[in-house]
Amino acid sequence: MQFELTREYIDILKTIIENKNEAEAIALMKELHPADIAEIYDELNIEEAKFLYLLLDGDTAADVLAELEDDDRDRFLKILPLEVIAKKFIDRMDSDDAADVIGSLSEEQREGILSHIDDIEQAGDIVDLLHYDEDTAGGLMAKEMVIVNENWTVLTCLRELSRQAEDIDEIYYVYVVDDDGVLKGTLSLKKMILSSTSAKISNIYQPDAMSVRTEESDEVVARIMEKYDLIAIPVVDSIGRLMGRITIDDVVDVIRDEAEKDYQLASGISEDVESNDSIWLQTRARLPWLLIGLMGGICSALVISVHENDLGINPAMAFFIPLITAMGGNVGVQSSAIIVQGIANKSLGMESTFSRLMRELMGAFVNGITCSSIVFLYNSLFSDSYALTISVSAALFSVIIFASIFGTLIPLSLHKIKIDPALATGPFVTTLNDIVGLLIYLSIGAYFYGL
Amino acid sequence: MQFELTREYIDILKTIIENKNEAEAIALMKELHPADIAEIYDELNIEEAKFLYLLLDGDTAADVLAELEDDDRDRFLKILPLEVIAKKFIDRMDSDDAADVIGSLSEEQREGILSHIDDIEQAGDIVDLLHYDEDTAGGLMAKEMVIVNENWTVLTCLRELSRQAEDIDEIYYVYVVDDDGVLKGTLSLKKMILSSTSAKISNIYQPDAMSVRTEESDEVVARIMEKYDLIAIPVVDSIGRLMGRITIDDVVDVIRDEAEKDYQLASGISEDVESNDSIWLQTRARLPWLLIGLMGGICSALVISVHENDLGINPAMAFFIPLITAMGGNVGVQSSAIIVQGIANKSLGMESTFSRLMRELMGAFVNGITCSSIVFLYNSLFSDSYALTISVSAALFSVIIFASIFGTLIPLSLHKIKIDPALATGPFVTTLNDIVGLLIYLSIGAYFYGL
Repeated sequence: MQFELTREYIDILKTIIENKNEAEAIALMKELHPADIAEIYDELNIEEAKFLYLLLDGDTAADVLAELEDDDRDRFLKILPLEVIAKKFIDRMDSDDAADVIGSLSEEQREGILSHIDDIEQAGDIVDLLHYDEDTAGGLMAKEMVIVNENWTVLTCLRELSRQAEDIDEIYYVYVVDDDGVLKGTLSLKKMILSSTSAKISNIYQPDAMSVRTEESDEVVARIMEKYDLIAIPVVDSIGRLMGRITIDDVVDVIRDEAEKDYQLASGISEDVESNDSIWLQTRARLPWLLIGLMGGICSALVISVHENDLGINPAMAFFIPLITAMGGNVGVQSSAIIVQGIANKSLGMESTFSRLMRELMGAFVNGITCSSIVFLYNSLFSDSYALTISVSAALFSVIIFASIFGTLIPLSLHKIKIDPALATGPFVTTLNDIVGLLIYLSIGAYFYGL
Repeated sequence: MQFELTREYIDILKTIIENKNEAEAIALMKELHPADIAEIYDELNIEEAKFLYLLLDGDTAADVLAELEDDDRDRFLKILPLEVIAKKFIDRMDSDDAADVIGSLSEEQREGILSHIDDIEQAGDIVDLLHYDEDTAGGLMAKEMVIVNENWTVLTCLRELSRQAEDIDEIYYVYVVDDDGVLKGTLSLKKMILSSTSAKISNIYQPDAMSVRTEESDEVVARIMEKYDLIAIPVVDSIGRLMGRITIDDVVDVIRDEAEKDYQLASGISEDVESNDSIWLQTRARLPWLLIGLMGGICSALVISVHENDLGINPAMAFFIPLITAMGGNVGVQSSAIIVQGIANKSLGMESTFSRLMRELMGAFVNGITCSSIVFLYNSLFSDSYALTISVSAALFSVIIFASIFGTLIPLSLHKIKIDPALATGPFVTTLNDIVGLLIYLSIGAYFYGL
């Protein structure tokens, strides 16, 4: 039942487009979901995509536009006249998608498009939605919802529902408001169907519905919907008036983005880039981190140069520099990843920093003893320098302990001062670990060699 | 409106529990959502939790049990008699949650509980669900759904709905089947409300509903629901008979877990551990990766020891070892993280490996030139060895290029042979990068010093 995009499929499609075979193209597109068509567009050049686009019926065309990747969409909107964008797309899209599309355009294009929208209510909704920041509840919400007054009966409701329902794809809840438009609660369609038509809404609705304020951040909205297993959540203004609703499918993207952002930060990528983004964009996201690493490397060089004489006498000390720095990095990243994920999915609980650190230290102790014993054994067998054998193992143990302390405390501290703790798992901390690790290693080495 | 768990709240609650103040405890719990109560339980000891638990009414108790973390739940089930578990919880839970709970128990406990369930239909559903692997569509699905026959009228449907609806919290779709139970399509409640009561279902339902097979993996289910913005998806067996349905809230967990797993693997953590897991569990998840890093460190030591004489003559060569290995690691992790995320969120598209590699190389070229120029400048100013200045910059450039090739090709290759590509961003590749980086650096160094 699901569509699987293959190289062959694209090739066949490209041939059809090349031959300008409209009938066949329409037949192919008819079988597909707008999300699949959007996926196909990603693989076509702009002329091919345009040919297909003009064959789609209005609603499908609008749905496909909403599903397109941002850069594909921008590419596309550039070649279409504003009037076509307004009438063929924006007018038919859900208000939240329409606001997203228009929000990414220039002021001038925006006004041009808005002036061409026939449905004045839709235009008003879009202008309202454009006021909110993209990453707040207001920026996520849509205006399409069924609203009923608490004083109505189920029968009035059902009539209102058929009137309002036209514009709305799916209805999961009906929102109940008072005469001032203040949200009172929700009413499920199931409840409405199962109640007598003369029942008063105020007697059957579910009061105390979960809701969020328009200015709430999208990550908080995602967390609430995830925690309480909500399919949709109403959005209210500062005095409780119902402003819109957010559905779970919009929030799924937020949840994925949030989880991915942590991973990207940990990998030293500071913007949301994808494999097929431009080199300029990728460089901008990646080079700054590399420069931090570079500065760290130069600091490391300075640290080692202080011990130049030791190395001149005992070059074998240099052999284990990569081992020490790599292990410090690995342990630090492990420790901080666990904290970062705990913060992200709220599983950290109430445990105090101190007891968390103690537990982390016990783990580090086990890992440190194991690893430094192995290296001790290795050096006992293959090295004839007792000082080296002791230095490397003692330094490795200390580095593992220190890295786990850093790895635990840095993300917790960043979180406390409201900086994204995922930064702590990135090159920044790895670099810091390198330098501290070297300091420890070379100091211990100098001490033992000096004995 | 949302509940925020604070240290103070827990302290107040603990005092109430200590004083065995049942009335106050009941009043506090009444205001909370089961998900909030589950969060509170996480902070209490088992005796305190038990005290609260026995005060909850049946449905709330069952909901709380479903929301509890796995280890909290296991701890809890251990102290309750099987009959209480069966009657107070399992009987009142949705079939998917009930199967999850029972699935985590021993064979013996399972049979004991099943024999105590009064509702034979619920017991049958649970036994059916236990057959499926946890990470398949069958393992995710629940049996609670409203099923109607295509030959019925809307009126029959509404009657059936009120009969079936009792057991089901929320209804988003009604599933339409033929006389053999084969899924024909879906019918939204909205459509049902808006149609005449004498309309035949076969004329108004939506055919060709998206569905998944019971054996489909949970990650594929998540991807389909996410792509097509589905709130619920029906699950069918190999001949198309309707077996159950999966709702988006169960899939949100899969999406989050999947994104987190990549991050954990990249951080060198091989099992799903959390900050408050036992030291033994954490060590098991982390030590193997550290040992890989340790082996890599020993290999690095061997590589450097081959150049012992060079280092004896030019100890300054050792200064830049951490810089070279760190930069190789950083670049490799960046490149592979982009590929791994592209694979995970299907944004890679159809681009060939070759053209992807070319683009990555161009980016590496820009980053490589920038970084090695900076180091060149630094060494020109602060080092009096021309050979060192050239060696470090040339090696850094080469290492950046090689690391980006590795970082791109290794995850793509792993993915091709069906190994999780996220492994490639972990310590494994960082370690490999260290060794190759050192080989390049020391070879180039030996060459230039030899000039």
